[in-house]
Parts: sequence; structure tokens; C-alpha cells
Amino acid sequence: MVFSFSSDQPIFRQITVRIANDIVNGELKEGDQVPSTNEFAKLLQINPATAAKGINILVDQEILYKKRGIGMFVSGGARAKLIKERQDSFRETYIAPMLNEANQIELSDEQIKQLIDEERGKRK
Amino acid sequence: MVFSFSSDQPIFRQITVRIANDIVNGELKEGDQVPSTNEFAKLLQINPATAAKGINILVDQEILYKKRGIGMFVSGGARAKLIKERQDSFRETYIAPMLNEANQIELSDEQIKQLIDEERGKRK
Repeated sequence: MVFSFSSDQPIFRQITVRIANDIVNGELKEGDQVPSTNEFAKLLQINPATAAKGINILVDQEILYKKRGIGMFVSGGARAKLIKERQDSFRETYIAPMLNEANQIELSDEQIKQLIDEERGKRK
Repeated sequence: MVFSFSSDQPIFRQITVRIANDIVNGELKEGDQVPSTNEFAKLLQINPATAAKGINILVDQEILYKKRGIGMFVSGGARAKLIKERQDSFRETYIAPMLNEANQIELSDEQIKQLIDEERGKRK
């Protein structure tokens, strides 16, 4: 798990997002143990309180769970839950801003769909 | 022309973007006179050098032009030129990141296109 911090978001938020991403992309699997708050803090050279804040968001969402005296693990169903959340926000995060821009620059929905096909073709 | 600065981008860049947006959305029309660098600086309570930096980008792109001793104006063809630029970057700025996210969260192109139709339907 390699971290590089950007200045756009608070560090605790970047930790939350990065762990969640690693679960979605399969780098962290359900049942896997994740580093403890103190290990994270040491690894990333950040304040333990900051690491705890980022991690506890995922504990509160039941994406991670703690086994007392053993460590912290990825919950069963975590990946599906994170994917569902991101699917739910996809329209607001991607579709709506794209249509706003398309309106401004006079691109039709047909042209957008064609660009999707072209971009997809380029990737195959 | 109302400005509010965000912290994400340097102020000179926000000035460039905002004037360009006003040309695209028609608030500033081709041939319209725009405030001088010093008027901008006063209006926005910023350093004249910052205002000049933001404005000169548009002068260099021939979106704005100066008439010596008279003032600064929106060039003929400015709107079409700005729209063309934004159309050219639309794929990279909107389509590609959207498809990256769709891949991660397992949305098909068909599902994306359906979301576009739904979002469009909501707006009508």
C-alpha cells in the first residue's frame, strides 16, 4: 500500500479514501488484516490521531472491524458496500457535471455517447 | 461579473477561467469592453500583477485584445475558440475519468448511457 498525499484533501480523508480504494480494487481482501492505527501512523509518518480519524470512519461504516487484542480487519461484504456507495454517487459525481459542461459547450447527448464509444474503443 | 475565489487554484488562474466562462456563457459578448487590469485589481481587491497575469493569458490566446489608449475587448471568434478548446479537452476531462470510475465500480457502458438519459429526463 503506497501512499502519496496531495494537498487537496485533509490527510485523514486521504487515508479513508485510499483504504477504501484498496478494498474496491482488490488489493485488500475481505478478512485481510490491515495495519493498526499506530502502524499506519509510523508507516506514513503522520500523527496517530490523524491516522485514527481516517481509519475510524471506515470502522463506523463497518467496512473495517476491530478484534480486541488481535487487530483490524476488512469486513465481509465491505467491497460490495463500497461499490454500491460509489454507484449511488456516480450520477452526481460524474454524469451531472459532464452534462453541465456539455450544455455549456453545445455537445449533444448523442455526441457524448459517441465519445464514450470512441474512448472505450481506444482502450480495447 | 461576480467573483468568489476558491483555494483550489491560484487566483490568476481563477481570473482567466472566470473571464473565459463569461465569454462562453454569453455574459461577455464579442466586441464588449472588459475592465482594465487596474480596474480588475481594484474591483477584486487583488494585486494588479496578479490581475495582469490572469488577463494576459487571454490576450496571448487572442481571446482578448488591447486597443492602445482605449481599453481591452473581447475578440471576434473568441467564444467559438473557447468552446472548441473545451470540446477538445472534454474527453480527457470528463469521459476518461468517468470510464475509469465505471470500471472500478463495475458499471457497463449501457448503464452509463442509461444514467445519462435518466439525468437528462430529470432536467427536462
